[in-house]
Amino acid sequence: MPTLRIALAQVNPTVGDLSGNAALVRRWSRTAADAGAPIVVFPEMMLTGYPVEDLVFRESFVAASRATLHQLAADLAADDLGDVAVLVGYLDADGPPRTSSRAIEGKGPRNALAVLHGGRVVVSYFKHHLPNYGVFDEDRYFVSGDTLNVVRLGGVDVALTICEDIWQAGGPFAAAREAGVGLVVSVNGSPYELNKDDVRLPLVRRRAAEAGATVAYVNMVGGQDELVFDGDSMIVAADGTLLARGPRFVEHLLVHDLDLPAAETATASSVSDRPGADEIADGMRISRMTISESLPAPAGPPAVGGVEEPVTDEAEVWQALVVGLRDYVNKNGFPSVVLGLSGGIDSAVAATIAVDALGPERVAGVSMPSQHSSQHSRDDAADLARRTGLDYRVEPIQPMVDTFLANLSLSGLAVENLQARVRGVLLMALSNQEGHLVLTTGNKSELAVGYSTLYGDSVGGFNPIKDVWKTLVWKLARWRNDDAARRGQQPPIPESSIGKPPSAELSPGQLDSDTLPEYSVLDPILIGYVDGDLGRDGLVAAGHDPAVVDRVLRMVDLAEYKRRQSAPGTKTSIKAFGRDRRLPITNRWREHSS
Amino acid sequence: MPTLRIALAQVNPTVGDLSGNAALVRRWSRTAADAGAPIVVFPEMMLTGYPVEDLVFRESFVAASRATLHQLAADLAADDLGDVAVLVGYLDADGPPRTSSRAIEGKGPRNALAVLHGGRVVVSYFKHHLPNYGVFDEDRYFVSGDTLNVVRLGGVDVALTICEDIWQAGGPFAAAREAGVGLVVSVNGSPYELNKDDVRLPLVRRRAAEAGATVAYVNMVGGQDELVFDGDSMIVAADGTLLARGPRFVEHLLVHDLDLPAAETATASSVSDRPGADEIADGMRISRMTISESLPAPAGPPAVGGVEEPVTDEAEVWQALVVGLRDYVNKNGFPSVVLGLSGGIDSAVAATIAVDALGPERVAGVSMPSQHSSQHSRDDAADLARRTGLDYRVEPIQPMVDTFLANLSLSGLAVENLQARVRGVLLMALSNQEGHLVLTTGNKSELAVGYSTLYGDSVGGFNPIKDVWKTLVWKLARWRNDDAARRGQQPPIPESSIGKPPSAELSPGQLDSDTLPEYSVLDPILIGYVDGDLGRDGLVAAGHDPAVVDRVLRMVDLAEYKRRQSAPGTKTSIKAFGRDRRLPITNRWREHSS
Repeated sequence: MPTLRIALAQVNPTVGDLSGNAALVRRWSRTAADAGAPIVVFPEMMLTGYPVEDLVFRESFVAASRATLHQLAADLAADDLGDVAVLVGYLDADGPPRTSSRAIEGKGPRNALAVLHGGRVVVSYFKHHLPNYGVFDEDRYFVSGDTLNVVRLGGVDVALTICEDIWQAGGPFAAAREAGVGLVVSVNGSPYELNKDDVRLPLVRRRAAEAGATVAYVNMVGGQDELVFDGDSMIVAADGTLLARGPRFVEHLLVHDLDLPAAETATASSVSDRPGADEIADGMRISRMTISESLPAPAGPPAVGGVEEPVTDEAEVWQALVVGLRDYVNKNGFPSVVLGLSGGIDSAVAATIAVDALGPERVAGVSMPSQHSSQHSRDDAADLARRTGLDYRVEPIQPMVDTFLANLSLSGLAVENLQARVRGVLLMALSNQEGHLVLTTGNKSELAVGYSTLYGDSVGGFNPIKDVWKTLVWKLARWRNDDAARRGQQPPIPESSIGKPPSAELSPGQLDSDTLPEYSVLDPILIGYVDGDLGRDGLVAAGHDPAVVDRVLRMVDLAEYKRRQSAPGTKTSIKAFGRDRRLPITNRWREHSS
Repeated sequence: MPTLRIALAQVNPTVGDLSGNAALVRRWSRTAADAGAPIVVFPEMMLTGYPVEDLVFRESFVAASRATLHQLAADLAADDLGDVAVLVGYLDADGPPRTSSRAIEGKGPRNALAVLHGGRVVVSYFKHHLPNYGVFDEDRYFVSGDTLNVVRLGGVDVALTICEDIWQAGGPFAAAREAGVGLVVSVNGSPYELNKDDVRLPLVRRRAAEAGATVAYVNMVGGQDELVFDGDSMIVAADGTLLARGPRFVEHLLVHDLDLPAAETATASSVSDRPGADEIADGMRISRMTISESLPAPAGPPAVGGVEEPVTDEAEVWQALVVGLRDYVNKNGFPSVVLGLSGGIDSAVAATIAVDALGPERVAGVSMPSQHSSQHSRDDAADLARRTGLDYRVEPIQPMVDTFLANLSLSGLAVENLQARVRGVLLMALSNQEGHLVLTTGNKSELAVGYSTLYGDSVGGFNPIKDVWKTLVWKLARWRNDDAARRGQQPPIPESSIGKPPSAELSPGQLDSDTLPEYSVLDPILIGYVDGDLGRDGLVAAGHDPAVVDRVLRMVDLAEYKRRQSAPGTKTSIKAFGRDRRLPITNRWREHSS
């Protein structure tokens, strides 16, 4: 039984940065080689980043992806890494897009995985199962592959698969069993969702059983727009044993020695660059290729990848929020962020995430008190700044508000919103003047029910907590403070910001509870309606008070109405933890009764 | 050869308004019956409106669509319309969505077309070809049908198809030929694109030839968010003769007498509600159903639908913009709109579209001069108001701008943007106080290169000209004025707004040409890059100056960068005339050199 030392590189590519991503592959391939691994596996669409969306349709981009791949193969050989089999995801195409007038049936752009070896691109696998749900639009972009590529490495037959291939029964994993492989490699761009790690391990186990082979699963890490990739790379034996599991959210090379069944020599071509005879298995063509019939046994002590322990939900979410913000800011080249500090829990949590992501010197916090701002709010904002060390300043808004009021006849809600909008103008002026990205700090509950001001507190380029229900904001705040205390550090978030009743402070004595049900009542209804697609009757059947359900659904539908006043094409797309929800703006369907 | 009088109802449903849409069907079915037609055909997804997006996933919505359909069949009979075959698109489902844990292979939500007759739902066809490109996401929502339904009506075999079925060769139209039908009905939700009418007629002719049968094509009209449906219903004989063609953009009942081949009695079941024996044609099952073997010949003079003449590009675009705005405002229940009037061409065209869409009494125009506003700008804004009769007011912004400047240390671009943002706050205050929807007025050229202020002139809920290149804005203005003159009316747009060099007037003497190439140079490059997916080399090969190409591409890529400072999830989605373009926000790919 040959021993294969495999290296899984869960790294963080940037969409469109072909040369930077290729450099990442060279750097981590070097590390893998130094660890004695003859095979190193990178994530899905490693060279281009993921998802590239409509860049797929630009021929110059496809050509650049292919050229970068071939140059990378040559560069790896020049780096003296030609003996390492480097598996790297990239964008390929064997025809124009499906919608082009030049389209060819069964050809087109491909979500591809190449094996680089000996300075050349040895073989490319084209993804078979294309996801087209949730955040995925791959039927829009790619043509499905119908060939399972099997590469013999060190006498072990290794099947190549990509992401969605592992989420569906049948196809590549079933074909891999018929092809008698010893190892299935699965490369992924699998976005984080709450508790997704609890789903992944059983899934990989099912596929390992289906293939009758060990499965090596590698996933990217890092933030890309509204997605966060969480790593969680792992190796599972055919019998379901978890052999190794990497950490979450951080770049890591998981190196592990695998004892794998030797391939039956008869079934494979012995010529290294000539595919074997055609076989068909589970509707897929099997294409075989030999790189090496044997390899020297790994030198030195055995490589053991280890099994990372799971963390609490709060720790997991916090890491996701920190990584998502950090990569949005850094990959887009912003030097710093600015946000308003109200003294409330939402801006306190958002500011703490920003400080954890970027360091206090890259975070500017602005207190913008009005005549309705309480003393405790001003004090709590200053206290947060002291605790976190962020760059703090105070800019009162009353002079600007008063000038607007002196020149326009406004009353009621228009006056409340005016205050939030003056704050928005102020933050954008600081952004223009000093280069910060503006962060918004509305939680998912208030966004869902429309308890915010368009072009007021919604002004900004990134909202670290837009996908966090209010009840979870509180939990995160407590977790972060407790975690600091456990480490012997000062808790960053003032206790009074966590404990006091929420208020927008846009009118005298205003409290959220004047307008909204208690968040402990509101959030479960919102979760059912927004994330769960339950209708009114379904929510009532789930045990919620019908009158409150009607009230909440009316607020959500009115919030959709409010969004109609917002920028064209703007939807509240909430992707990282909940569902990707696409609803018509113009829409008269109402779930609530009257 | 039986004569069948067919009525094509190109009407304007509203998404989610099931009862309102059903009422539309009842009203137009009455009109069709009064015209002596035994068959009336409504557009795709008539009962729900189109597209319904993720409402598909809400079981309560699917159930309501089905219940409304059955109630509609009963109501039509109660209306004494039970003898009319009413063909109506709706949302059906024979299983949970594909992504549900309860998913069933080959079952799920369906884009469906029902035949209502005798108070019952006689049969439903499920759309076969599902579009998943451009503005369409139907692989996300629907499961493809594999049965072609053929209904015998008045002794003529009629095949049912839906929208994309007609855009692809093979499938339903090929099966219809093998099934030997006399007529194919095609119901559509086909969005307007520039010159799409020039594509549709040849397309319908090709399919009529493929099916060897007359094709009756009906399309909806009206605006839905960023889409506009343009009608253009038509009837084409098997030999390609255009028999009738409806108008564009307006509700219309196209009634026409067709001489159609009698069905061969042997091949169909003679029992009205029992499907015939299974046949397979072009991979689809044929399901036959008989409603009537004969009908009395149409009474009175022959019905002739007529053939509407095509209009100029400018007239066509203007109608699309008017309809898109009108339906957005009316379907969402806004009483009125407000927009800033600068005296320039963009706001003048946008205001004129609004007045054409809503009437002058529902349009408020606000001149918001600053110290940089020229006298001719102020005069031209007032002149436009006089010519169109809209509700006009002047709100100087200098006091508010000065208060911000007195309280913050701002310079350069931050000061320029501040003026635009104070205008945005002012318009939103009027929106809150008086209930208007705010219109923005940036043209597609300036949006593409980022020549606008985030949360400044970009504040608003709908932009009537966001998909109109600047050079087309000028053409539209001239066309609208000439058209008025032809009708003996006063041209609405002041000549000097059309003729003067464009300026943002945010700093002394500022002109667009200080920053941008001439629009006659800029627009063709933008069209190639944004709509055409050309890369730098492709644009240079098309004859553009390489230095200008680099400059423009850098501006577009920087504009994408600027959008990163905007609200999360906000993209410049441009759907009505150009492509639906989805690009990553975080993205380092650059087409320009250096």
